[in-house]
Amino acid sequence: MRIKVINGNTFELMTQEIDRIAQQVRSPHVDIVTTQPRSGPQSIESYYDEYLAIPGILEEIILSGDDFDAFILACWGDPGIEAARELTRRPVIGVAEASMYVANMLAARWGVVTTQHRTLDMIEKTIHKAGFSHRCVSIRTTGIPVTQTETDRPATVDALEREIRDAMACDRLEAVCLGCAGMAGLDLELEARLGIPVIDAVAAAVKLAEAMVGLKKYTSKALTYQSPDPKPILGYPDHMQP
Amino acid sequence: MRIKVINGNTFELMTQEIDRIAQQVRSPHVDIVTTQPRSGPQSIESYYDEYLAIPGILEEIILSGDDFDAFILACWGDPGIEAARELTRRPVIGVAEASMYVANMLAARWGVVTTQHRTLDMIEKTIHKAGFSHRCVSIRTTGIPVTQTETDRPATVDALEREIRDAMACDRLEAVCLGCAGMAGLDLELEARLGIPVIDAVAAAVKLAEAMVGLKKYTSKALTYQSPDPKPILGYPDHMQP
Amino acid sequence: MRIKVINGNTFELMTQEIDRIAQQVRSPHVDIVTTQPRSGPQSIESYYDEYLAIPGILEEIILSGDDFDAFILACWGDPGIEAARELTRRPVIGVAEASMYVANMLAARWGVVTTQHRTLDMIEKTIHKAGFSHRCVSIRTTGIPVTQTETDRPATVDALEREIRDAMACDRLEAVCLGCAGMAGLDLELEARLGIPVIDAVAAAVKLAEAMVGLKKYTSKALTYQSPDPKPILGYPDHMQP
Amino acid sequence: MRIKVINGNTFELMTQEIDRIAQQVRSPHVDIVTTQPRSGPQSIESYYDEYLAIPGILEEIILSGDDFDAFILACWGDPGIEAARELTRRPVIGVAEASMYVANMLAARWGVVTTQHRTLDMIEKTIHKAGFSHRCVSIRTTGIPVTQTETDRPATVDALEREIRDAMACDRLEAVCLGCAGMAGLDLELEARLGIPVIDAVAAAVKLAEAMVGLKKYTSKALTYQSPDPKPILGYPDHMQP
Amino acid sequence: MRIKVINGNTFELMTQEIDRIAQQVRSPHVDIVTTQPRSGPQSIESYYDEYLAIPGILEEIILSGDDFDAFILACWGDPGIEAARELTRRPVIGVAEASMYVANMLAARWGVVTTQHRTLDMIEKTIHKAGFSHRCVSIRTTGIPVTQTETDRPATVDALEREIRDAMACDRLEAVCLGCAGMAGLDLELEARLGIPVIDAVAAAVKLAEAMVGLKKYTSKALTYQSPDPKPILGYPDHMQP
Amino acid sequence: MRIKVINGNTFELMTQEIDRIAQQVRSPHVDIVTTQPRSGPQSIESYYDEYLAIPGILEEIILSGDDFDAFILACWGDPGIEAARELTRRPVIGVAEASMYVANMLAARWGVVTTQHRTLDMIEKTIHKAGFSHRCVSIRTTGIPVTQTETDRPATVDALEREIRDAMACDRLEAVCLGCAGMAGLDLELEARLGIPVIDAVAAAVKLAEAMVGLKKYTSKALTYQSPDPKPILGYPDHMQP
Repeated sequence: MRIKVINGNTFELMTQEIDRIAQQVRSPHVDIVTTQPRSGPQSIESYYDEYLAIPGILEEIILSGDDFDAFILACWGDPGIEAARELTRRPVIGVAEASMYVANMLAARWGVVTTQHRTLDMIEKTIHKAGFSHRCVSIRTTGIPVTQTETDRPATVDALEREIRDAMACDRLEAVCLGCAGMAGLDLELEARLGIPVIDAVAAAVKLAEAMVGLKKYTSKALTYQSPDPKPILGYPDHMQP
Repeated sequence: MRIKVINGNTFELMTQEIDRIAQQVRSPHVDIVTTQPRSGPQSIESYYDEYLAIPGILEEIILSGDDFDAFILACWGDPGIEAARELTRRPVIGVAEASMYVANMLAARWGVVTTQHRTLDMIEKTIHKAGFSHRCVSIRTTGIPVTQTETDRPATVDALEREIRDAMACDRLEAVCLGCAGMAGLDLELEARLGIPVIDAVAAAVKLAEAMVGLKKYTSKALTYQSPDPKPILGYPDHMQP
Repeated sequence: MRIKVINGNTFELMTQEIDRIAQQVRSPHVDIVTTQPRSGPQSIESYYDEYLAIPGILEEIILSGDDFDAFILACWGDPGIEAARELTRRPVIGVAEASMYVANMLAARWGVVTTQHRTLDMIEKTIHKAGFSHRCVSIRTTGIPVTQTETDRPATVDALEREIRDAMACDRLEAVCLGCAGMAGLDLELEARLGIPVIDAVAAAVKLAEAMVGLKKYTSKALTYQSPDPKPILGYPDHMQP
Repeated sequence: MRIKVINGNTFELMTQEIDRIAQQVRSPHVDIVTTQPRSGPQSIESYYDEYLAIPGILEEIILSGDDFDAFILACWGDPGIEAARELTRRPVIGVAEASMYVANMLAARWGVVTTQHRTLDMIEKTIHKAGFSHRCVSIRTTGIPVTQTETDRPATVDALEREIRDAMACDRLEAVCLGCAGMAGLDLELEARLGIPVIDAVAAAVKLAEAMVGLKKYTSKALTYQSPDPKPILGYPDHMQP
Repeated sequence: MRIKVINGNTFELMTQEIDRIAQQVRSPHVDIVTTQPRSGPQSIESYYDEYLAIPGILEEIILSGDDFDAFILACWGDPGIEAARELTRRPVIGVAEASMYVANMLAARWGVVTTQHRTLDMIEKTIHKAGFSHRCVSIRTTGIPVTQTETDRPATVDALEREIRDAMACDRLEAVCLGCAGMAGLDLELEARLGIPVIDAVAAAVKLAEAMVGLKKYTSKALTYQSPDPKPILGYPDHMQP
Repeated sequence: MRIKVINGNTFELMTQEIDRIAQQVRSPHVDIVTTQPRSGPQSIESYYDEYLAIPGILEEIILSGDDFDAFILACWGDPGIEAARELTRRPVIGVAEASMYVANMLAARWGVVTTQHRTLDMIEKTIHKAGFSHRCVSIRTTGIPVTQTETDRPATVDALEREIRDAMACDRLEAVCLGCAGMAGLDLELEARLGIPVIDAVAAAVKLAEAMVGLKKYTSKALTYQSPDPKPILGYPDHMQP
């Protein structure tokens, strides 16, 4: 079984870290290849960042041909996931939705904690897209940028602990999704400090991707996720023409 | 890895069928034990059936001690799942929620097809409990009782096909969950006829249970799913006293 | 007119207190019999408690034959109410829903205050089941167990006052339902202290039950609440076989 | 116990019919006085009708001083009910909400059938105001004007039967509220024809009003339903100045 | 192009202020006439006030014949707007909805700040009526009566600033609608103090009314907003008979 | 006043048609420049199309510097609108939201009719993004591709008429938004045939853009729509680096 994990941004340090976690949690018989797009921003912290990241993410799907059994979009926001599903019959799993399914199986009241304050609206839309607007009881932000989340682990962990503790007290939070692929690997330390399930989105997605491949189910091509119709798309290379 | 699958009813033929599917889809290193409750109805088709089934289902959790790494409630309705989660730190996965997560990853517009017309309200509540009231676009019923669903496969498959086709035409359904553990194993035939993903709930739950165990995450004991407080419970055996 | 009030738990002191309130508010021509199940927990403070209470509650309906004109489920949570409605054509009124209808007629912004913190999720589901998720503006918990709620009245009243005052200030609460049958009879003291309507759920249910009997309307047997179909139910006595 | 029933329109035949039903269902010790406003339209079938009816309805509350223990607004739409609650501490019950509470206790899937097609939007807002947008599964209209509903009983009953049957087939309706005070008294004939609970809104409101008076609870004056502040109101008589 | 602005209350100072703002923002080729109803309260701060204001507001529409190209209801609450739309084919714009459309185009997270605490429920219903229950993130009240809002500008501006700052901190508010026509003209001062868009509802409505007239679109007469059917309406002058 | 209208796709014939309508409805003192992106698909009929169109759309905002007072995104779907709002303080109006605001002011029950069946999910998300999930009563698709919608007017108008008539009968539709910029200019013909308001999204957006500029309000830079933070974005030209 081969799974391709696509980091949503072009920050190599984060790609490596995502790969490290993915390799750690994969089952023995699973090959994982972690990549990052050829184009796009160093981090996704605005809608502008997100929309400029998506073509590169989709290119990673296209370039893979039939080499993989499943794809993981490793950016909490699952950017472009609907289009990714149009491009392949293989299951495409977003790390955001994966972490929410896991949270939903472990706790009655769960939430999400993420990075910059300005992404609050993006996070709400991501939760709505997966269908969980009425289940998620708390959304928190640390105010720490994505790249610093990756490079300054101690400050990040402290800020996350602070926000999660506050949500436990105020919103009666019982489990939390780490809402940024850049937080991959921080779950154990936070669980030790907080005593509630803390869900690493990349790890969750790897296990769900394995499950989906094991199920042998494919993306529906009945309507919404049909392949894009052929048409000229200016300014994109040949391999991205549908 | 050991997983216990608990059929929600006491119909042995269905327990065997559920076991057959579960053994088929499990990964090689996984042991699966399928059981049925010592008490409860032959099939769950009313609220009365459901509520009389739950104590027996919970007893199956209690009797297992620490012998299993995860539990599956194999009745579309996930009866008693909140109490099951109170009784163990191990992940408890309902076949209903499992099939909905899978559908949600495969299609933009998915639905559920189940047995008796009278269970419509129960099915709606199950969908709401998992959080998907705003995602599921169609709920259909064949009118065929659960036991007949198990014993008369040809009529069942024809009725399912008819309902799903109607939902595809009217509700633009793109994928469908088989909303009864008694339909386990019918997915492939229906996929062949219909051309859209048809999700076997038992199979979905087995793969998600493997994923959850692989993730090494435990049910939150922070609030809702804490162990039941000790107190006398009249009319139940010693091993069911909390 | 004869009404049967069924305490949801097996705590005799609470059954007596519920009866005291019910006898107090009943109309002169109404006979009220208050009972408690033969089986089930001393108090309902977890999903486990609730699911183990329900068979005994339903047995109380079955044992009544046609002796009563209406039934009241006296546990805020209305446990098993859908199944109770399957078992009889007589109106079945839950104390939770009854108190919410009354609140809804008296105030624009109302809420619920209950016992243990861990029941928050159960309370939310009860409110949703009655249909009022979008109307109830505040849910509060005192953290006091059900039995202590019954036995330590002064501490209970003080804790309730504190929570309700806080909800009045923060959530602009204008009326409140006492969310536990064990709080029966505390409404007047709290109204005197707080100046807003405080609704005793048992009293509300008695008056609504009288109203329903007076209306001569019966539970719909058209679909959801049809009688359970005959089938073997293992481990339950003959009189509980449908 | 004295209850004032206020017909929302100025159609005397309907006022008499409402009174007839109210007298029929009232308990022996209850006095009922049915009135109609001094001003306002002959029937309420548009927003214009409704808004011109409300001052006269409110005047009926004001003119009553402390002579009544409860008030009933006898127009499905509960026009001006929030203002009526500002004007008195006595319970004010709308026939629309009363019928919906009753339906909600009798059936899992209930609906409303009313008169003119154009009132569909008004009916939806009424259902939302009571809090039941997510519970009511079907809204139907006969297309017959309110006054003709009152005067041509056979045609009305036939049209109602047709719409309700259609809702039973299409929407799986299990009980229905007659959504116009002009349909008062038609419930028994329709129940006989259809076999599901048909709820007469006036009757429902009378029994709930009796219940509310019996409960001795008063409208909250904490915030929304405080008495209107004194201020000049041009064009209205002295007794309507707050 | 001629637009009639109808102040919802009969407070002449407010009518003048509304007119001042409307004249200020209107386009050069637009004639604006601002009026107030012949009947109704000096300010709208309760449901009673609102319902007694509406007939006078509607009379202003009726008296206008075909003299105007559009109407503006200048009271945050858009009182009687559905009936106003029944009375004319010309576009009728409420200042509440207008300000919300503008906020919705300028900010992801917007709210409303208004006068008396008791109007909270009215404001929520106004937001729901326009369709924005799921978009508006904060509703605040200053506790200052409408007339004082008009006459004591410094205290009003300070109170508004305080509430908005609090909403910015707590609810992450990014733009705010001034939820009372009596606050007309305070937007610039508040924007200067707060640095977020502050929307004057009267100004918003004037510009949207110009846009609607420019579009040459008319109120739908297909169903809900059909002209009221002819019928006697007691207690109203001839020109108000439909 | 200068307004830039950005066609979402790169189909020149559609850009010309959009411009023709925009010039027709603009006020005399308004300059309108209609452009199309340098990159992107010929039509937007899939998520893939949409996501590949957005960078080019955003580039059009960036290239404009301060030359325009407002921007219009002329694709029903308002692709990338959140990012467009990050890039400028000038108002950015989407044709989808504009048409829905207009519909919401003209009718109680409105809907949307669009092109390919597969875009149903995209349309639902667009309606949700504007906030109107609970207001829009009908979504219809003709099945005709975007480019053919532009080139084969008679077939398009007939198909639209058919779908709208069906929605009028089944969903009680009272007004409809033409859900594709390629339908610009068809509103009058359809209004003549159908007798209900038919809203041309481009025209609606032009008038709302004029209104927004007249209001002198700017996009909130408080949180969500702050300018993107500077960071390297691989594969995009210098002028697109934030």
